[in-house]
Amino acid sequence: MPLISSGSKGVFVISATPFTESGALDLASADSLTDHYVAKGADGLTILGMMGEAPKLTQAESRAFAARVIGRLPDLPVVVGVSAPGQAAIGELSKAVMDMGAAGVMVAPPGSLSTNESIEAYYAQVVETIGPDVPLVLQDFPLATNVAISNGTLGRIFEAHPSIVMLKHEDWPGLSKISALRDAEAAGRRRTSILCGNGGLFLPEEMARGADGAMTGFCFPEMMTDVVRLMTAGETERAHDVFEAYLPLVRYEQQPGVGLAVRKHVFASQGIIADARIRSPGAPLSPQAVAEVETIIRRQAARLAHLS
Amino acid sequence: MPLISSGSKGVFVISATPFTESGALDLASADSLTDHYVAKGADGLTILGMMGEAPKLTQAESRAFAARVIGRLPDLPVVVGVSAPGQAAIGELSKAVMDMGAAGVMVAPPGSLSTNESIEAYYAQVVETIGPDVPLVLQDFPLATNVAISNGTLGRIFEAHPSIVMLKHEDWPGLSKISALRDAEAAGRRRTSILCGNGGLFLPEEMARGADGAMTGFCFPEMMTDVVRLMTAGETERAHDVFEAYLPLVRYEQQPGVGLAVRKHVFASQGIIADARIRSPGAPLSPQAVAEVETIIRRQAARLAHLS
Amino acid sequence: MPLISSGSKGVFVISATPFTESGALDLASADSLTDHYVAKGADGLTILGMMGEAPKLTQAESRAFAARVIGRLPDLPVVVGVSAPGQAAIGELSKAVMDMGAAGVMVAPPGSLSTNESIEAYYAQVVETIGPDVPLVLQDFPLATNVAISNGTLGRIFEAHPSIVMLKHEDWPGLSKISALRDAEAAGRRRTSILCGNGGLFLPEEMARGADGAMTGFCFPEMMTDVVRLMTAGETERAHDVFEAYLPLVRYEQQPGVGLAVRKHVFASQGIIADARIRSPGAPLSPQAVAEVETIIRRQAARLAHLS
Amino acid sequence: MPLISSGSKGVFVISATPFTESGALDLASADSLTDHYVAKGADGLTILGMMGEAPKLTQAESRAFAARVIGRLPDLPVVVGVSAPGQAAIGELSKAVMDMGAAGVMVAPPGSLSTNESIEAYYAQVVETIGPDVPLVLQDFPLATNVAISNGTLGRIFEAHPSIVMLKHEDWPGLSKISALRDAEAAGRRRTSILCGNGGLFLPEEMARGADGAMTGFCFPEMMTDVVRLMTAGETERAHDVFEAYLPLVRYEQQPGVGLAVRKHVFASQGIIADARIRSPGAPLSPQAVAEVETIIRRQAARLAHLS
Repeated sequence: MPLISSGSKGVFVISATPFTESGALDLASADSLTDHYVAKGADGLTILGMMGEAPKLTQAESRAFAARVIGRLPDLPVVVGVSAPGQAAIGELSKAVMDMGAAGVMVAPPGSLSTNESIEAYYAQVVETIGPDVPLVLQDFPLATNVAISNGTLGRIFEAHPSIVMLKHEDWPGLSKISALRDAEAAGRRRTSILCGNGGLFLPEEMARGADGAMTGFCFPEMMTDVVRLMTAGETERAHDVFEAYLPLVRYEQQPGVGLAVRKHVFASQGIIADARIRSPGAPLSPQAVAEVETIIRRQAARLAHLS
Repeated sequence: MPLISSGSKGVFVISATPFTESGALDLASADSLTDHYVAKGADGLTILGMMGEAPKLTQAESRAFAARVIGRLPDLPVVVGVSAPGQAAIGELSKAVMDMGAAGVMVAPPGSLSTNESIEAYYAQVVETIGPDVPLVLQDFPLATNVAISNGTLGRIFEAHPSIVMLKHEDWPGLSKISALRDAEAAGRRRTSILCGNGGLFLPEEMARGADGAMTGFCFPEMMTDVVRLMTAGETERAHDVFEAYLPLVRYEQQPGVGLAVRKHVFASQGIIADARIRSPGAPLSPQAVAEVETIIRRQAARLAHLS
Repeated sequence: MPLISSGSKGVFVISATPFTESGALDLASADSLTDHYVAKGADGLTILGMMGEAPKLTQAESRAFAARVIGRLPDLPVVVGVSAPGQAAIGELSKAVMDMGAAGVMVAPPGSLSTNESIEAYYAQVVETIGPDVPLVLQDFPLATNVAISNGTLGRIFEAHPSIVMLKHEDWPGLSKISALRDAEAAGRRRTSILCGNGGLFLPEEMARGADGAMTGFCFPEMMTDVVRLMTAGETERAHDVFEAYLPLVRYEQQPGVGLAVRKHVFASQGIIADARIRSPGAPLSPQAVAEVETIIRRQAARLAHLS
Repeated sequence: MPLISSGSKGVFVISATPFTESGALDLASADSLTDHYVAKGADGLTILGMMGEAPKLTQAESRAFAARVIGRLPDLPVVVGVSAPGQAAIGELSKAVMDMGAAGVMVAPPGSLSTNESIEAYYAQVVETIGPDVPLVLQDFPLATNVAISNGTLGRIFEAHPSIVMLKHEDWPGLSKISALRDAEAAGRRRTSILCGNGGLFLPEEMARGADGAMTGFCFPEMMTDVVRLMTAGETERAHDVFEAYLPLVRYEQQPGVGLAVRKHVFASQGIIADARIRSPGAPLSPQAVAEVETIIRRQAARLAHLS
């Protein structure tokens, strides 16, 4: 089973968690969704993140889902979100999924942290809890966590804990942070992998600033794999062409509370998952929103046809 | 097994959750702590609340602790906090603890709710999830939840859902809300039980405004049972005398993040629980804080001796 | 001097406030910027909003700037932001700018409001303070104010205060709110003008949902006037074509804390204002950001050339 | 005119701002209130703070009030709150009040600051704006500002800016911060004066931890001056006796949004100010609250009579 490292690159798709029409975990759809991500070029998967409705799953469901996805991808890295209010739950789930073959775990800071020092102490606790051998992704997502982490704080955390090999970069605005992180590495700080979130809304710029790829869940993963590949190959203009073809939908999907419904709608309408259901709290797309998404996708298809 | 109702009165002590020195759940101390609460006059207990470190327990631990406390109190009502990010977890834990013999469950609103309408919709979901026969306590604690619930909103929720029989009142400042709630009942709204939180910091005034008692965890439960009894009996001056004897410690315990450490320190130093440990994140009392608490308790004992 | 009304339509550009290199108010640049907005088809202007750095101006500067812009536009409506922590300041500035010839004033709710009732009471106070004859714009911008206002609450406020003739719609996500507002009007509620903000990021969809136009400050105002005109004329596909040509920059400008620097950079680089300076706190664009903006504008120009 | 310094000690009372029944600034009452504070032993005054309703004053009113109070106290230090959203306003008001003879100015951090680095940069800006010769008080009040400042950050700010001579300590809980600050000074950090806020709720403990006094507005200033004097003299038990006599009212006054109404009610009922009016938004005490306060003060008087 592969582990993530500070050299990890490419696109780790944040996987949705499919449910049946009755609201139960849909493991058959989990299989087909996983296969779809791989077919579109995913270099890895991240499961049980915020967009994976992790907090709405019971602990038994979380483990069942993780086991299914990890089991289906023996050769690809699967990162598992294990954020929880207490270290006991973080430790328990981390151990379980690493035993299943996960490539690493991801932890976002709890909203109660309010100073650089408290954030540093928190990640020290996490590393102590899960052990220094488990590859850890630090999720830096202030818009959701309400915790801002400065470049200096990230640096001290990275230096103190070599097992933190990756940053899920989701600060907003965050382009200058990527530059600051890479500048610090150029000046001697240990390198970490940086994969970017925010639905891919700034992916070309993020790659140009030094990101290693994306870790987010836009519903056409081929946009992300194409843009990352093209930017890596130096085909900047072509990368922007592809990105802009998808941008109206990327933008639409970025609406908080609407984005996940868009993703599941797109997957369900393509037959990739059986049902677009979101667990409560959470609402399906309204008919007007469905019409808007369909207009956007129709125009997107036309642009893509024109591109190729 | 008794159930709570809109006529419930008295003091429901919010129970701490004891851990051993190694951090494991300490069920023997749970027994002795439960016995202590009862010996000091508790009319009921509330477990797995915020001060019970509920979010830091695994699901298995939550159930084990609930089973132990409920099993030890066959004749007293035990309310169980079941707040969770998703309805699935709320439903699962509610069913489990009601099957064990709980007297009802308590749910605080998630921080994502931001309008009256969204709060009303949320409690409709909760009642649908747990079923209309399970007595429900609405925890109104804006300082912790960041969700303000107006008197009007409470009224619409109470009228729509008869199974919500009790308000855990913890708004801050909240005295005028008690008056508004009782005025609305005088004008025809269905009555609910109102038990007050905030560590008892306003208990005499809350009782005078129309509260039915307290639901909080001050480390000398006899303060709460005495004040509620005296206020109910119309012995207002004596109630204030008792209250004021304990007020310096009530105040000290109200410090966020310090209060639980004070409670566990007091219980451990009296031998009621084996260890004062708080699960991470969470810190023990500093030596200076221990000295401050000891000074306060020494002076408190002198005042109490003078009172009786 | 024209006043705004519930029938106001089109694009009210949120004006930046130019400063000289030394940080003083630059009234000459205010003139040229105002002329630029008008040349690009603005139907009105809004000044002293959040993006106009209003909180960073002294009261004397606010009045001087308002007098200059209002004086330069005798035939176009100018809305003035008058939000302030106390009613005294709101009343004072409102009276001053209405005497100058403003078309109306705009007030956002203070962050301390947390229930529907408190929001309704607040706008009743505002209307009482400024008088029922002053046309008022309610700015609904939860991401900045931290105050969510439900459709029902907006309806009660609109019905109670006929002088509130316009909603600056900036909820996020907010498309369904436009539909809900228009549905309520179809069912009998008094009509208000709805002009949308958020930098124009959803302008085609907002127009299709029933908005009357835009009130925001995207640095190419011709995008907004073209899209509003085309959507109004039923030329939906063409409207999307235009919108998508500008979308990469709209997206880039939406980064909090960066957007205003982008706007001022674009205006300054075109010679429309003398200096891109932002008052402290607030930072200029980094060289890397300047390069990103230039790439986006170069590609935007190519798309526009292709369009026409 | 005296200036504050890192050696300042004692009680700086946060002054209320009196208004007439019609809502205008009441400078005659400002005189009598100022005299009252001095008669009760105040070592200095702080005006235009949050509890002084500063944000509700116009700039002209702020200056008029400052001039009146400073003019009446030629021999006592008067600190003036100058917090504002922009540096321009901070600079303007600072210069004005220092020219009037203020002893220093006080600035709280704006809520937008979210990392140690941004807080440090902010105070560097402030010092640059007001000049390095103006004594500056850093107001550390996270509950109101939503900005947590660690001991380490305070240290870096103090070392970088010798003109910051005083900390208004209002962290919550904050006792351990006083100890940490004094420990750092013992280890070599430059000394600053620490005056504590929070209505005096922890004044004896704060003095024992190393505070130099209080800067807060409890409506019986003699409590603060007596406790600070007794603690300084080593009469700890007597200090606690005095403190506890007033504690029920200190507690009652600490209710957010109610406290200022209590203060003004107490002053008005004693004839110290002409009217208890609070500017909108802000409400007077309800009749029930008035009765509660009167009960508390009656019992307080009895305790005090017993003490002496």
